[in-house]
Parts: sequence; C-alpha cells; structure tokens
Amino acid sequence: MNLQNSLNFSGGPGALPENVLLQLSEEIMKVPGLGISILGISHRSEWFAEVISELEGNIRTLLDLSDNYHVLFLQGGATQQFSMVPMTLLRGKSAAAEYIQTGYWSSKAIPEAKLEGPVRIIWSGVETNFKRLPTDDELRFSPDAPYMHYISNETVEGLQFQRVLGRDDVPRICDMSSDFLSKPYDFERFSLIYAHAQKNIGPSGITVIVVRDDLIEHTPPANLPSFLDYKIQAKAHSNFNTPPVFAIYAVLLVTRWLMNDIGGLKRMEQINRRKAELLYGQIDESGGFYQGRANTADRSLMNVVFNLPTTELERRFIDAAQSAGFSGLAGHRAIGGLRASIYNAVTIKAVEELANFMESFQRKFHGAGG
Amino acid sequence: MNLQNSLNFSGGPGALPENVLLQLSEEIMKVPGLGISILGISHRSEWFAEVISELEGNIRTLLDLSDNYHVLFLQGGATQQFSMVPMTLLRGKSAAAEYIQTGYWSSKAIPEAKLEGPVRIIWSGVETNFKRLPTDDELRFSPDAPYMHYISNETVEGLQFQRVLGRDDVPRICDMSSDFLSKPYDFERFSLIYAHAQKNIGPSGITVIVVRDDLIEHTPPANLPSFLDYKIQAKAHSNFNTPPVFAIYAVLLVTRWLMNDIGGLKRMEQINRRKAELLYGQIDESGGFYQGRANTADRSLMNVVFNLPTTELERRFIDAAQSAGFSGLAGHRAIGGLRASIYNAVTIKAVEELANFMESFQRKFHGAGG
Repeated sequence: MNLQNSLNFSGGPGALPENVLLQLSEEIMKVPGLGISILGISHRSEWFAEVISELEGNIRTLLDLSDNYHVLFLQGGATQQFSMVPMTLLRGKSAAAEYIQTGYWSSKAIPEAKLEGPVRIIWSGVETNFKRLPTDDELRFSPDAPYMHYISNETVEGLQFQRVLGRDDVPRICDMSSDFLSKPYDFERFSLIYAHAQKNIGPSGITVIVVRDDLIEHTPPANLPSFLDYKIQAKAHSNFNTPPVFAIYAVLLVTRWLMNDIGGLKRMEQINRRKAELLYGQIDESGGFYQGRANTADRSLMNVVFNLPTTELERRFIDAAQSAGFSGLAGHRAIGGLRASIYNAVTIKAVEELANFMESFQRKFHGAGG
Repeated sequence: MNLQNSLNFSGGPGALPENVLLQLSEEIMKVPGLGISILGISHRSEWFAEVISELEGNIRTLLDLSDNYHVLFLQGGATQQFSMVPMTLLRGKSAAAEYIQTGYWSSKAIPEAKLEGPVRIIWSGVETNFKRLPTDDELRFSPDAPYMHYISNETVEGLQFQRVLGRDDVPRICDMSSDFLSKPYDFERFSLIYAHAQKNIGPSGITVIVVRDDLIEHTPPANLPSFLDYKIQAKAHSNFNTPPVFAIYAVLLVTRWLMNDIGGLKRMEQINRRKAELLYGQIDESGGFYQGRANTADRSLMNVVFNLPTTELERRFIDAAQSAGFSGLAGHRAIGGLRASIYNAVTIKAVEELANFMESFQRKFHGAGG
C-alpha cells in the first residue's frame, strides 16, 4: 500500500503508517458510532476517556511497565520537558544535576536546566564536533546528583546509545523523543522518560511521559504553575486542561499498529535494524563516496547522517532524490549534509528503494566532485 | 452539505466547517504538490513557512491589526496563558494585577497569577453564582496596575461582555478563547489577547496570541524558560520548537473560510446573532419550561446555557436530542443543566433544527416534571 506519491524520510514530523493515515482521514469526517468529526469531540466525552485508557494500557503493555509508573500525554514537546524536569527535581536544590552533552538537542536541554539550579556536564562532545558518544570509562556519575539526564538518540548528528547509562541509585531521566517505541528497553531502570510523538509515534503536538510514582509524589516546589506539575497532570489523567484530542488519538492508532500489525517492540527493532543496515551498508561500500558522519559504534538506527564529497553534490543528491520521489533527505539546518530518518513507519521497501537510488546516484556521479 | 450524521453543539472542541474537514481529510493522505501526508511535513519546510505567513496575514486582515502587533501560535491552551501573562508582566512587581472573576474560567486564571505576584480581584460574581456580569459602576480600575485581565466570554455559565473593559493607560489583557473571530472587536485597544483554537477556529492543541510589541520588548524576568518567553517565540515566528503543524494548518483553513465563504467578521457576527436569537427566543417564549441561566443583558452569543424544570427532564432532553441527531448538549460538568454552544461553524440551519426540536420536546413534556 502506498497511497502517497513520495517516500518520507523527514527528520520529523516523520512518516506514519498508511493504515493509520487512512483511518484518521476517515474519522476527520466522522467517527463511527458518534457521527461527528474527531476534531469536534469533547475531551470530557466517554469516547475520549476510553481513548486515553486504551492508549495508557497499550504503552504499559509495549513497555512492560508496572503499576508504579504513570503514563502522561502533555503538550509542549521535549522542549517543555527540558524545563519541567529541572523545575520538579532541581529547583531549590544545592547538589548539581548531571547532564551528558552529546549533540544539538542535549545542548538545548542544558541551559533550561541551569535556570533552575546547578548543573554538572559530565561529558561533552563539543570539541569532537559531536561525532561520537562517550565510552563508560569517560563517565563518572555522582551518587549525590538529584538526577542524571541524557538523550538516547541525537537526531541531528545521528548518534544513538545502545546501552543504559548512569547509576541505579540516582534518578535516571532520558529524552527518548526519537527512538521511543522503536525497540525494547529496560524501561523500569528509568525514573522518567519523555518522548514527543513526531518521530515514531504520531503527529507533532503531543508528548508521552512515563514517570515513576516516587518522583512526583512529594510536594511540588514553590510557584510551580499547575500545568507544569506532573502530579496534577497525573491526577487528571492528562485531562487537566483540554488536550490535543486528535494527536492523542493518532498515537493510539500507532500503538495498535505496533501491537497488531508489527507484533511488538522486538519485531520493530528487527525491522529497524534491517533498515539501518541497508543504508549504512550502502555508505560503507561506497568507497568513500558516501561518508557516514558518526563514529561507527555510535551510529543511530533512526537517523542515518552522511555527506558527499562536495556540498554541490549534496545539493544535486537532494534534488535528484526529490524528483525520484524521496522526501526530507536534507540534513538538519544546523549542520547541513544529508540525513535519512528511518523511523518506525518507514518501510523496509522504502529503504531498499532509497539504497538503490543511492547506488545509481553514485554510479552517475562518482568522481564528479571528489 | 452535511456529511456528518450528527449536529455538533459541543462546548469545545467544537464543530468545524464541513469544507475545512473535507480538505483536512484529503490532506491527511496527501498534500497536493508535496505527495506526502500533512502529518509528516517538516515544520522547517518552505510549505510550512508559507502556512504560518498566510495565517498571520489572514488574522491581521480579519482583525485589522497594525504592524506593532505580533501574532503567535503556541501550545498549551488558555491554561498556559494563565501562567505566561503573569510570568511576563507580574513576576517581581509590587503593584497588583487586576482580575475580574466572572465565572469558571476566570476563577482558574486567578490562582495561577497569584503564584507570580499580587493580584486584586476587582469584581467577583461568586456570590451571585456567576449569573451576571458587572456593570461599569461596579468596576474601579487602578492606573497603577501592571495589567488588567478579563475573559470576554465565560463558556460554562454562558456570560459574554458586549463592551471593552478597563483603562486605556493600563495594559488590557483578554482571554478571548471562546469568542475570538466570532465578531469584530476593537483589537487595538488590547495589549495582549489569547484564544485557544478549539471553539471557533480549529482543533484543540493550538492557541493564538496577539500581542503588542512594547509588552514583550523589555528584558524578560529572571529564570523564564525559553518556551514561555513571548519574545523568543515572536522572534522564532512560532517555530521555536516543533509546533503542531496539523492544528495550525486547520486554523489557516478556517481563516480562509471566514474570509472567502463567510465574508469577514461583520457578517460572521450577523450570523452568530441570528443563531443566538433563535435559541434565546425559544427559551423566552417557552413560558418558563426552558429557563436561561444568565442575566438577559449578559447572555452569551456563543454558549446558550439553560435549564429545564427538573434534572430528570434535562436527562431526557439530552437523550432525546442525541437520538434526534444533536450532539454535545449536556451542560459543563461543573454546573450541569443544558448548553448549546453555537460557535462559528454551527450553521443557522443546524440551530433552526435544534430550536424546532426544543419546541417539539416542550410540546411533549410540558408539565411532565414542572
């Protein structure tokens, strides 16, 4: 099934499964049994209470979570979480929170944390231009930190941790925006994870937060606005104020697709690994025509970031790809180059077609600018 | 055109125009010229820059705004604005901001403001059970207030101001969530107005803010998170972090509909007045069977809130209305009763059908519970 004309490799908002799009398209006109558009359904309706309840359940099942975790759906993206986490856990504290600076997005999170309290950057990739991730030997975690924060996958640079970091006796907080539900994880080793939807699980405008009871059960710090209070949001079951009903419903459909069509996170990971192998294989066998940006061991399974010998060739690649029906391949504006984002909904077939295109582009242009 | 089975009188998220729904439904599958779903389009694309630019322009045109106003599109609903306004204008100040407490929603805004600084409630309808609005004689505005805040339309109680309040030498801030773009207004008398989309202008998950230059051009108060800083958001043209692309596009389509299909805010107001007259007329001519909640002079053109002689009759009314194809007529959970919300996209024809239903329901049940 390919009802769209182009294959979407955008860094986000990214591709969604075709059958999810089809159902959303129909329910924009009329939700079966209700007779009105999904865009006009009250967030206080029984229908929406069931949506939230099923979605929470699906995420619990996919993540294999115990009852001491809350599953929240909030607005504001990862950016809002960059602030909510330190507002909740760092405001008024004297011990430093620990951050790992691995790329563009962790560099955005750190200044927001510093507004709330002391921050210690325990490793930074700035000097190595964010081309690699730290090894365990390079990381010294303190037992006294209020929490430790890192980003599991840096979309701009195409770097991904394939292990869980930090100490088990310090709250472990992770921004999983770009690899959430793309593979199994030992989620219960985390105190709080957050992930905006627009990579693997839905449209932009909604963020999933999974947070352990004890992290939010204490008295909130002074002057915390209600909408930024995890405890209030948890108590209201993500319905403290009007939530983005449509975006949440879209995430529900994606979780159904993951469970029923894909068969769970293990199978999703196999598919995602196969997709990444196809593209990195094409890069590694190109004799230097395609150059992967990230250190091989730290390569992301979600964002394949690479360069061509010249920026002129990169421009031609993007244009030729666009004409051939591949969308969203320009690198992030912060670093340029090329990026193929292969989130959950990008099919193996789409990636095979892109690999073939890369091969034929190389045949045509090898030596042209190198 | 009525592709839906039910007529939606929900208090919000509310009805949207059928041709807007049709276009959204198609573009969920494929945006013409792009070949991909609207849900997968990058917020950094040219396409989206044009969406923001056209939407800003349309709102400027509809509101007849001069260049010293910014038009922003933010997440978080009116609730986030309840906090952003005092964070920006009250934090660190000693003079009290002035609030008018006219109903359920203004009662939510006040405690959030108090977290940031002193607040003076210059009038409260608590003791009169929010059945009326203040007269000019009851309001004493101070020239020293950092700002004065009120809500133009209270959706729960069905109260609406038909005049502009406050002094011209004190920043006038208004929550217009439920009557924005429903009628012309002297918008330039306001320093800042905000309106979430889910009543008159789009789906939930997006809020329009119209703010005058001078209000945000000063240095922001200490420790303000970037995403809550109007100045940063204005500079980034509402694209500081990933915005809800789909919801913003839906609002664009609604503004096109307002300009091209309806013909502007003056015409929209005529239509909205006609709709309100139909329902209030039905109530007033019912011989007390239907009882309007609000003081006649303060009645809302957006939310017609009324009661029947008994709660049992109210329950029967809701059930019978549902069976007859009218959706969303239960009153707000805070006060019960009945509420017909007749936002922009509810047609005169739909309201005529509801008025007819009310008449026939009365014929059947008059005296049954009174």
